[in-house]
Amino acid sequence: MSPKRVRAAARVGAAVAEEPLVVFTPSGRRGRFRRGTPVLQAARALGVDLDSVCGGRGICTRCQVTIGEGEFAKHGIASSDSHLTPFTEPEYRQQESGQLKRGRRLSCQARIGGDLVVDVPPESQVHKQVVRKRAEARAIELHPVVHLHYVEVTPPDMHEPAAHLRRLKQALKEQWDLDVESADIPLLQKLNKTLEDGGYKATVFLREGKRILDIRPGFYDKLFGMAVDIGSTTIAAHLCDLQSGEVVASAGCMNPQIRFGEDLMSRVSYVMMNPGGDRELTLAVREALNGLAQETAKEAGVDPLDIMEVTIAGNPIMHHLVLGIDPTPLGFAPFALTTDEATELWATEIELYLNPGTRVYVLPCIAGHVGADAAGVVLSEMPYRSDEMTLIVDVGTNAEIILGDKHRVLAASSPTGPAFEGAQISSGQRAAPGAIERVRIDPETLEPRFKVIGEAAWSNEPGFAVVPTGICGSGIIEVLAEMYLAGILTTDGVIDGSAAGRTPRIVQQDRTFAYVLYEGSPTITVTQNDIRQIQLAKGALYAGARLLMDHMGIDAVDRITLAGAFGSNIDTKYAMILGMIPDCDLAKVTSAGNAAGTGARIALLNEKARRELEGVVRDIEKIETAVEPKFQDHFVEAMAIPHKTAPYPHLKAAVALPEPKFAEADDAGGNGGRRRRRRERRTG
Amino acid sequence: MSPKRVRAAARVGAAVAEEPLVVFTPSGRRGRFRRGTPVLQAARALGVDLDSVCGGRGICTRCQVTIGEGEFAKHGIASSDSHLTPFTEPEYRQQESGQLKRGRRLSCQARIGGDLVVDVPPESQVHKQVVRKRAEARAIELHPVVHLHYVEVTPPDMHEPAAHLRRLKQALKEQWDLDVESADIPLLQKLNKTLEDGGYKATVFLREGKRILDIRPGFYDKLFGMAVDIGSTTIAAHLCDLQSGEVVASAGCMNPQIRFGEDLMSRVSYVMMNPGGDRELTLAVREALNGLAQETAKEAGVDPLDIMEVTIAGNPIMHHLVLGIDPTPLGFAPFALTTDEATELWATEIELYLNPGTRVYVLPCIAGHVGADAAGVVLSEMPYRSDEMTLIVDVGTNAEIILGDKHRVLAASSPTGPAFEGAQISSGQRAAPGAIERVRIDPETLEPRFKVIGEAAWSNEPGFAVVPTGICGSGIIEVLAEMYLAGILTTDGVIDGSAAGRTPRIVQQDRTFAYVLYEGSPTITVTQNDIRQIQLAKGALYAGARLLMDHMGIDAVDRITLAGAFGSNIDTKYAMILGMIPDCDLAKVTSAGNAAGTGARIALLNEKARRELEGVVRDIEKIETAVEPKFQDHFVEAMAIPHKTAPYPHLKAAVALPEPKFAEADDAGGNGGRRRRRRERRTG
Repeated sequence: MSPKRVRAAARVGAAVAEEPLVVFTPSGRRGRFRRGTPVLQAARALGVDLDSVCGGRGICTRCQVTIGEGEFAKHGIASSDSHLTPFTEPEYRQQESGQLKRGRRLSCQARIGGDLVVDVPPESQVHKQVVRKRAEARAIELHPVVHLHYVEVTPPDMHEPAAHLRRLKQALKEQWDLDVESADIPLLQKLNKTLEDGGYKATVFLREGKRILDIRPGFYDKLFGMAVDIGSTTIAAHLCDLQSGEVVASAGCMNPQIRFGEDLMSRVSYVMMNPGGDRELTLAVREALNGLAQETAKEAGVDPLDIMEVTIAGNPIMHHLVLGIDPTPLGFAPFALTTDEATELWATEIELYLNPGTRVYVLPCIAGHVGADAAGVVLSEMPYRSDEMTLIVDVGTNAEIILGDKHRVLAASSPTGPAFEGAQISSGQRAAPGAIERVRIDPETLEPRFKVIGEAAWSNEPGFAVVPTGICGSGIIEVLAEMYLAGILTTDGVIDGSAAGRTPRIVQQDRTFAYVLYEGSPTITVTQNDIRQIQLAKGALYAGARLLMDHMGIDAVDRITLAGAFGSNIDTKYAMILGMIPDCDLAKVTSAGNAAGTGARIALLNEKARRELEGVVRDIEKIETAVEPKFQDHFVEAMAIPHKTAPYPHLKAAVALPEPKFAEADDAGGNGGRRRRRRERRTG
Repeated sequence: MSPKRVRAAARVGAAVAEEPLVVFTPSGRRGRFRRGTPVLQAARALGVDLDSVCGGRGICTRCQVTIGEGEFAKHGIASSDSHLTPFTEPEYRQQESGQLKRGRRLSCQARIGGDLVVDVPPESQVHKQVVRKRAEARAIELHPVVHLHYVEVTPPDMHEPAAHLRRLKQALKEQWDLDVESADIPLLQKLNKTLEDGGYKATVFLREGKRILDIRPGFYDKLFGMAVDIGSTTIAAHLCDLQSGEVVASAGCMNPQIRFGEDLMSRVSYVMMNPGGDRELTLAVREALNGLAQETAKEAGVDPLDIMEVTIAGNPIMHHLVLGIDPTPLGFAPFALTTDEATELWATEIELYLNPGTRVYVLPCIAGHVGADAAGVVLSEMPYRSDEMTLIVDVGTNAEIILGDKHRVLAASSPTGPAFEGAQISSGQRAAPGAIERVRIDPETLEPRFKVIGEAAWSNEPGFAVVPTGICGSGIIEVLAEMYLAGILTTDGVIDGSAAGRTPRIVQQDRTFAYVLYEGSPTITVTQNDIRQIQLAKGALYAGARLLMDHMGIDAVDRITLAGAFGSNIDTKYAMILGMIPDCDLAKVTSAGNAAGTGARIALLNEKARRELEGVVRDIEKIETAVEPKFQDHFVEAMAIPHKTAPYPHLKAAVALPEPKFAEADDAGGNGGRRRRRRERRTG
């Protein structure tokens, strides 16, 4: 507590009977203050969360309050507007300009004249709650790492010629009770001119209350930050107002590294085979970040110089590449990260050109395959605060799997391969316009109908007028699950040739069969190999989750959250029918959308959340699937649809599954063996 | 104290009688240790200052000790070589390679077998004393801010795949008991490869025990730093071995900013009149620093990547320009510095390209005209530790004046102008080959003889064969003092025309006279105006010193130190005859040479000295001569030679001064008036 606060608190303790009583809501803090004390000063003395940038000069209008009248009379507090000094000149001015709402007072201008109940509306609180869209998600509490402070600095004269920085620090000490530790070279380089331009009135951008990042002449109240999630395929950025918590603009782009390789492993190979390749990949992603910053700033009408903080989430390879660290060790056992700690640096250190004082916070990684993106997911979903045993899967080329509750959290990654993203699927493609994303198969006729991205109508509906170009991840999940429900697919994942008699859509290809989903140019077919690829992927995913459940000593989970773009697009029911995830109450299987990006946004808005995450990440138990003998067994069993042995009670209660039917007993195991060999050289 | 040390110390406290007693000299620390304890471990347990880079692996040979035999027997300690375990394989190897001196042991290899007196020779101490040339100067204690630590890091494997940085930190904790806080991006970028190249053995460059600056494969023991003094005219650099304290190379160059203006004020004018001019000046000085770093490194055979620390001293304008801060406010009252604090930054921030991890420490400034160069002088001469009241003057375009003892230190600057540097003198030139630097005048014949820089013989000696090109600062001081002693110059600084009859060397020029020092091409003449310029300069210098003496409440000082190039070259006796400095015992008037550079070197070698200096600088009382009414009075009185009223008892006892003789009573005052107006717009 500051010296001033201590003195004020002592006065409160003295509780001089004749001094007015002031109660702040919603905090409930109360104290007695001398008549004439500004309400803001009383709030500060009591530690009430009440914002101010101008430090009580009637400029910023952040400290607006409402006076509660009458309602507290039963507690013996006769609060009334008349217990405040009259409306002041700055208040009239701010009311006219629309900055001060009707019925409100500026707490820095209004002074205590009698008992009061003072309500601090949410927008006047520094640590306001930022509401999230999803019903089950917690609101984000605002605790930005950068704050603005308006100060009036003593001009130098011959009798008091102290250095500018010294006088600035003195002003921050006297006017804000802040002890500033450092100011960097770019700040020093502009300090003199800024102070002169503002007539020795200036607004300071202060980070963590101790480092001056920037300074602007006069009163200034714009402050933004950008949260970025670097995915292998797409990069998403949110530009946020650090003072309101609002997202003011969002933008996304393809990860330009795609030109060096579609999936992570091919990018690592590119680096290995091309000297300087890591620099190319690093430059590509940094350029994309610069582009997104400019794009979101332009959209929101924000000066990029006002973007003072950036947070970054991404998988380990993206994490290393954006930092300029060679990712090749992540391509091979033992998949050692260079660092797993949260990294804080200057934006310029990663060639991100915003304000010279902009800092970047890169979320920590959890393990070699469980990156800063998974850490973002953890921060977004907060399983570590949950009473429910929650399974979170973020499906990409690697599935990152987190299991836990408030007592214990485990994490692992599982090498699902890129099949869920449409790769290695004969007609597979990325989720983009033209891709089949939903499929239904009539169990009688075995005729399909489907929905294509970018087209509202189903394929059997009037007005459907597009030519599908392929099938994306969610489409392949659905077509397989529907084939299984329609009896075309056996429990062990073989297209049942005996159904060929019932429909021309089942055709023989060499020794196996295929299902023709769409006949045209191109013809879109689900081949036996496509099914094997998805079986390998979903088997790995399930086995990873099951391994964590073994470690946790549980057989069922209370909640399942699907994170990531893929997780948002798939129908959770089909994911369970196919046995990608363990059994669970379907009502508690939800999509979290880009949870990694949300985690980056929370880290951007809430400094305390960073420390919380760093602590949680340290405590998360990392399970390395590759050295767990049981993983192989789980994997083999999980090749079946939905699973060879797991009972799936919740699923069976909701969906009528066909009777188990097996075509070839050994194939799954055989594929598993191949799988085992391939997993050794795969990362992403 | 580390946990290990605490445990060891507890064992010492227990003082188990049968365990051998070990006494370390010169520290006198002693304790009992179990037989078989390595001597190095015992030293660490007792906090004995004993170096080690390899951490006790017999590689670095830094921990050499000598065993004292016999001499301690009277204290009951029968110390003997035989009380140590036998010579080991690493010791034989190091002795053969010449690294381990005969008669010494490696304290990490030799283990305690009985009572011992162990002498730690100076070169085995971390905090050794670096002796300085000057008799009255204190030795520099070595306390380098960067240390080397050899570590053996656990390689990652699938069962223990922790991130490289985590395992490196763990090794530093386990092997050195160090808690590392941070590692920056350039370090992370090379970490994986370095660890692999060194087989997971590496040497860490650690700053302040908490920040990893660099890492090299295997054992590495080269570590250097550069101390720089940026003068307006010349820049001097010393490359130092940070482990021995030795200067391994020195170099100097002209300050390339000279092409933008000879003196500081003309450089400030250049900046004001040329947009972007400050950037040109900044680039020029930074290029010079890069050049000096490369030059000294080449001379000493040092890899510039091993220069991990740089310290910089310089006057306020040089200080601002090297940091890229606009110096123009320093050209006008109130001469406000942007910052007066010590500034620490990355070398790359000032475009100094050494190691990406190299840090720069810029010494603090004292006041608007008393810069980081004066702070360096303070650190070099340490008046704040002295029993003697010491006056230190560093003469440049501004004289920086420091007065004090261990109780109190004052500082001021006085606008001497550039006359002492040969500017504004009709035949003046910088101290360079060809310049007259010494002058004697025969009081009978009034004939001069002189010495020229670059020529050993005096002008009247056989073999003298150069043509002088001008007269430098020390020459002008001597010729004036000699003219005064010979009776050519009156007390109020007028060339006595009545002497013209005695010698053709005194010639009339308009209404004044001049003294022809050398007739030739060019003819070198001392004009009346030259004398006025020197009177103005020396009057300002004396007045500044006198003002500080007033503030201190004293009439005489115990010691005078002349710092800077000019101070090194002038004969202190002539400086006093001319009344540049107050009266003092001539034996206690000494030159400190480039004391600012020495201060930079102390700051480079001794981290604690930085904190000491920062504290001292904060406490120094700054006197602004421009706002002190008495300064004008002192100035006018000090125009006379040696002084109008000051008695100069020590000087008169040593030198026969002529009787006071006055030519024109008002002139000095008139000049003083002009002087007053000019001083307002002068900085340097």
